Amino acid sequence: MEPIADAAITDPIGFSAGAVHAGIKKDGLSLDLCIVASDRPATAAGVFTRNKVRAAPVKLSEERLRAGRCQAVIVNAGNANACTGERGMSDAQRMTELAAAKLGMSARDVVVASTGVIGVHLPMELIERGVGRIELSPKGGHDAARAIMTTDTRPKEAGLRIRLGGQNVAVAGMAKGSGMIHPNMATMLSFVATDAAVAPSFLRRALAEAVNGSFNQMTVDGDTSTNDTLVLLANGAAGNSPLDGSDRDSRTFADALLQVTAELAKAVARDGEGATKFIEVVVEGAASVDDARRAAKAVVGSSLVKTAVYGADPNWGRVLCALGYSGAEVEERKVDLRIGEVWLMRGGELQSFDRQAGVRALSQDEVTIAVNLNIGSGRGVAWGCDLTEGYVEINGKYTT
Amino acid sequence: MEPIADAAITDPIGFSAGAVHAGIKKDGLSLDLCIVASDRPATAAGVFTRNKVRAAPVKLSEERLRAGRCQAVIVNAGNANACTGERGMSDAQRMTELAAAKLGMSARDVVVASTGVIGVHLPMELIERGVGRIELSPKGGHDAARAIMTTDTRPKEAGLRIRLGGQNVAVAGMAKGSGMIHPNMATMLSFVATDAAVAPSFLRRALAEAVNGSFNQMTVDGDTSTNDTLVLLANGAAGNSPLDGSDRDSRTFADALLQVTAELAKAVARDGEGATKFIEVVVEGAASVDDARRAAKAVVGSSLVKTAVYGADPNWGRVLCALGYSGAEVEERKVDLRIGEVWLMRGGELQSFDRQAGVRALSQDEVTIAVNLNIGSGRGVAWGCDLTEGYVEINGKYTT
Repeated sequence: MEPIADAAITDPIGFSAGAVHAGIKKDGLSLDLCIVASDRPATAAGVFTRNKVRAAPVKLSEERLRAGRCQAVIVNAGNANACTGERGMSDAQRMTELAAAKLGMSARDVVVASTGVIGVHLPMELIERGVGRIELSPKGGHDAARAIMTTDTRPKEAGLRIRLGGQNVAVAGMAKGSGMIHPNMATMLSFVATDAAVAPSFLRRALAEAVNGSFNQMTVDGDTSTNDTLVLLANGAAGNSPLDGSDRDSRTFADALLQVTAELAKAVARDGEGATKFIEVVVEGAASVDDARRAAKAVVGSSLVKTAVYGADPNWGRVLCALGYSGAEVEERKVDLRIGEVWLMRGGELQSFDRQAGVRALSQDEVTIAVNLNIGSGRGVAWGCDLTEGYVEINGKYTT
Repeated sequence: MEPIADAAITDPIGFSAGAVHAGIKKDGLSLDLCIVASDRPATAAGVFTRNKVRAAPVKLSEERLRAGRCQAVIVNAGNANACTGERGMSDAQRMTELAAAKLGMSARDVVVASTGVIGVHLPMELIERGVGRIELSPKGGHDAARAIMTTDTRPKEAGLRIRLGGQNVAVAGMAKGSGMIHPNMATMLSFVATDAAVAPSFLRRALAEAVNGSFNQMTVDGDTSTNDTLVLLANGAAGNSPLDGSDRDSRTFADALLQVTAELAKAVARDGEGATKFIEVVVEGAASVDDARRAAKAVVGSSLVKTAVYGADPNWGRVLCALGYSGAEVEERKVDLRIGEVWLMRGGELQSFDRQAGVRALSQDEVTIAVNLNIGSGRGVAWGCDLTEGYVEINGKYTT
C-alpha cells in the first residue's frame, strides 16, 4: 500500500474531471461546478445523511444508486438545493440530464450533489451554461476538488496504490466540508474513485465499514447536514478479477478504502471552520469498539474540550466529564488519561504533572488525547478541531 | 399564583441562609460558601446529573436524600470536588459534618453541593474556618444566591406565592450555572425551598415533572456536568394539610414548582457564558410532547442556529436542519416556521419575507423561534442562548 503523491480523484485509470466558475458562488471567479466521470460504466455505492430533512440531490442520488451503478457525478457549490420543494427535485434531475447529455450517457447513470446555502433555488441558467463550458480531462481532479469547496480553506484529496492479483489499482478521492459537520456521515460531500473491479454488494459493505471508521468518527460542530453525501465509483479498469469480499485482495481493498476515507475525514476536521488545531482522541480499553468510538467522539465533540484545546489549558476534568456522558461504560477509578506525552491521570488518580508541559502538549498544531478505560479491549479513534472565535465569526456572518 | 418581588430562597417561612468569602475563589472577596437551613425538619427530594462521572457531593447527597428528608444544604463555589477520589468523598462528608455541628443537627440531615474547577481537592481548612464565620438569617437568601455563582454574571432567583387550603404558601429558589450546561439536569446547581407540607413521594414526583419541563429543556453548550444538583426542601411551616398528589392543591403546588424552576432555568440560559441573546424555541404540532421537547432542544442547542442568532442572520435552513436530526418525527413539507413575528415557512414552502424584518426579529435581546410540525398535538419549549466569541474566550482561558 503506497500513498499517491499529490493525489486526485482522476488518478485511477479511466476517470476524468473538469470544473468551471458557473457563477453560483458570487465572487465571480471561484470554481463552483464540476463533473467527474468514468470512461466506462462503474459499480457504485453511496452513503447519505441521516437527517430527516434531506436535500433534493440526496434523495435523487440515493434513489439512483439503488441500482449499484453510476458513471458520472455532477456537483455544485454555493447552493445546497435543500428545502427547495418540488422545484428542487426537478432542478436536481435537470442537473443529471445536463451532465448526461454532455457525456453521451443516460441520466440514470449520473448522480448529483450540492452544497452551500439552504433554501434558495438553484440558478439553473447559470448551471446549464456552466455545464456547456466544462472540459473533462484526466488531469482535472484537482480542479474538481476545488470546485466542491464552500467555507473550506483548502481542497482535500487523498489516494493510495495497492496491488490486487498482480494488477496495480488506485483508490483516490476528494472531500469538502468545514461546517455543519458531524456524524452521521460527517463530511458534507466526498467522492472516491477506484479502477478496481468490485462486486456491487461487497462495494456497499466495504464503503459502510470504511465510513464507520472514518467520516462517522469526525465532528466539527455537532450539526448533521441535510446534504451529506459520499459516492464511491469502481470502474474495473485495472483489470483485476472482481472482488466479492471472500479473499485477501478484498481485505486489502477494504483497508485501502478505509485509509483513504480516514485521510479525507481528518483533512475535513483539520480544516474545521475557524480551527487552529487538529484534535485526535484515541480511546482504548473500552467494553466494545462501539463504546470506544462513542467515547472518543464525545470527547472530541465537547465544546468545553474544544475551547480548552484552543486555549492550551490542560483541563483534563472536561475530558473525564465528556467520557461520563458519552454513553460508554466508564469507571472513573480505572481511567488513564494522557495529553500528548503528559500523563494526567492513571487508574482514576490525578498525576502530579508539570503544567507547562501540559500547556506545551496543547500548543501543538496536532493534539492527541489518549484515554484507556481499562475495562475491555475496544479501541476507537475520533477527529475534530478546536472551537475558536473564528467559528463564531464565520457562522454569525454566513449569509442565508 | 403571584410572583414574589425580589424573591429569595429564604422567603418561605422558617428558612434562613448565610454566606461568606472562605477563600476558595481566589479573588479575595467573592462569596463562595453558604448554608441554607430550615428551622425544622423538612421533606426533601433531589435530582442529579446523569453523567457517569459524578462528583463526590453528588454521590453523597443523592444517598442522603434517599431518606426523603433534609434540613440544610451547604454549598461552595470555586471548586467542584469532582474527580477527587476517596479524599473527595471524605471532604464532602466533612462539609456536611461542619454544617451539622454549627446548626446542631445530624450530618444525615445535611446535603452538600460544590461547583467550580474539576479535579482539585477542596481547601478544607478554609472551608472549616468559613463555616465558623457564616451567620444565618431569614434575610440571607440573596447572599446565598451570590455565593453559588462561578462564571455567572448575576444571581438567579425566583419565587411564587400560592394559596393552599386557605394557607399562604411560598415556593422560592435559586440557581447557578452558565457553562457546562446541558440536559440532563441542566443547571449545575439549584435549590428550591417551600413552606408547604408535602408527602415525600409526591414531592419527588412533582420535582421530576418540573425538571422535565424546565431545567431539562435548557442548554447552553451541550456539556452535561459532573455536578448538576437540584435539591428541594418542603418544611411544612405554612400549615397546610400535607399534599399527597390527589387533590387540586397538589396540582397548584406542582404548577408553582414548574413555574419557579422554569424561571430559574430561563435565567441560567439568559446568562449563558458569553451570551448576548436569550433564545426560546416553541415547537407545536409534534407527534408527542417528547418529540416536541426533543425538537425544540435540538434547535436551541444547534451551534449553527446559535451563531445565526448571534449574527442576526435569518438562516431558517439551519432550523430545519436541526429539526431533521432531532430524532423527532418531521415531515419537511408540513413545517411552519416563524422567527419573532416573521413567517419564514408555511407548509414546508419558503415564504417571501422581508430580510430586514428577519434581521430585526433576530436583533432583539430575546429571540423566539416558533415551529409547527403539523403532525400531532405535542407541544414543547426549550431555552438557550447565542454562541459568541465570548463563550470561546471564557472557556479558552478558564484555569484548571
